[in-house]
Amino acid sequence: MSDSEVKPDLGRIAQHLEALEETIIARLIDRAQFRVNEPAYESHSSNFEGNPHESLFDIRLRFQEEMDAQFGRFHAPEERPFNKKLPPSRRKVSLPATCLQLENYEVINLSGDIRDAYLQLVPEICKSGDDGQYGSSVEHDVYAIQAIARRIHYGALYVAESKFLRDTMMYRKLIKQKDADQIYQKLTRSDVEKRIVDRVADKVDQMQAFTNKQIRHVIPPETILSLYRDVIIPLTKKGEVLYLLHRKE
Amino acid sequence: MSDSEVKPDLGRIAQHLEALEETIIARLIDRAQFRVNEPAYESHSSNFEGNPHESLFDIRLRFQEEMDAQFGRFHAPEERPFNKKLPPSRRKVSLPATCLQLENYEVINLSGDIRDAYLQLVPEICKSGDDGQYGSSVEHDVYAIQAIARRIHYGALYVAESKFLRDTMMYRKLIKQKDADQIYQKLTRSDVEKRIVDRVADKVDQMQAFTNKQIRHVIPPETILSLYRDVIIPLTKKGEVLYLLHRKE
Repeated sequence: MSDSEVKPDLGRIAQHLEALEETIIARLIDRAQFRVNEPAYESHSSNFEGNPHESLFDIRLRFQEEMDAQFGRFHAPEERPFNKKLPPSRRKVSLPATCLQLENYEVINLSGDIRDAYLQLVPEICKSGDDGQYGSSVEHDVYAIQAIARRIHYGALYVAESKFLRDTMMYRKLIKQKDADQIYQKLTRSDVEKRIVDRVADKVDQMQAFTNKQIRHVIPPETILSLYRDVIIPLTKKGEVLYLLHRKE
Repeated sequence: MSDSEVKPDLGRIAQHLEALEETIIARLIDRAQFRVNEPAYESHSSNFEGNPHESLFDIRLRFQEEMDAQFGRFHAPEERPFNKKLPPSRRKVSLPATCLQLENYEVINLSGDIRDAYLQLVPEICKSGDDGQYGSSVEHDVYAIQAIARRIHYGALYVAESKFLRDTMMYRKLIKQKDADQIYQKLTRSDVEKRIVDRVADKVDQMQAFTNKQIRHVIPPETILSLYRDVIIPLTKKGEVLYLLHRKE
């Protein structure tokens, strides 16, 4: 089957996005078991041998991506790295045929925005202060930020293609005019967004309902609600616009 | 405060072990979203450049530990690696004072047993068959097996020391006689073990109660119940015996 014959299935795309919600929440709950631990995010204070300038967070994220790159992670369209100059893959990865019409997935790399937003989120989900557990904190940061990035890039790519196919004439016109604002407006479905945000807040409660609060720090649903409303959904739409503007005909 | 002045707090140790249960379950649920994917565990079929003999699982576990070692993970008593010959730490890690009376934490490294038991668990929690997602599968394997190993080694070290202090005379006698079987019997608390196993099975249900079963694969509580009853608890006790036999006076 050639790529062009694969059609996006909006039901399956929505299901996949929904499944990723639980992963994101679980990862953030894991991170929240440690204090904010500010020094882990400060440049020049990693105390990492041979690396005096970067923060421990940035060093860990780069090490992780250097490993992941060798295992072929960034062949997947929705896996866009935070770092440049990563080593080549050492595995042959056979990806399933894709419906995406894009020459270069890297044109939709929102990792800079995601990194900034994530660093603002940390003090909202974690208890303030310092427990000295910098290594564990950045380890969990990396898993959480990778899950968030996967959600955003997956949505940007597949939702955009599926919306394009459902209203090809209209999008073709706006793409020709390079009218990013208008495309953004057309992509917006406030009812769907509200449903996602409410569902995510419910999940945060449900997933922590039986947690022993004496031993585990619980994160407030509002923090994840805002993450979705103010970061994940807008960045996904920003990525959708980029996808459409770069879509090959 | 010198190490010898720190006393183990059995309440806090039990709380930490309980908190680790949720991490283990969450990691296994993540892994179970992929098929068994047998080729990822077969030697000679990783297709990993420069590494024709190991399985993809073993290669990923080694890469992860080589990274973790540089970040100082294995300075922590309960973090015992699966691999030998890991690179030295590139961070100064300042660990909190410990109550443990042990020259070398590596004498309590049960990772061989843990690896074998984990590989038997995979086909019990995952749907059979092959979805081609070998890279993601072994990524989640590594997170799950690290969480299980941390639980076992933490319990082995800290529970043993705290039991020793509560019945020093008796344990001293058995240690002198090097009577491993008798120590194992004395360490066994069937009522506590039953409570742990039941609680874990309940948690598996609770953590998946709101899961949309159309889109996420649910793991049966019995699989994790058996993991605790037949693997985690016995290996923890095996580690406790080793701790006591190597405890410095």
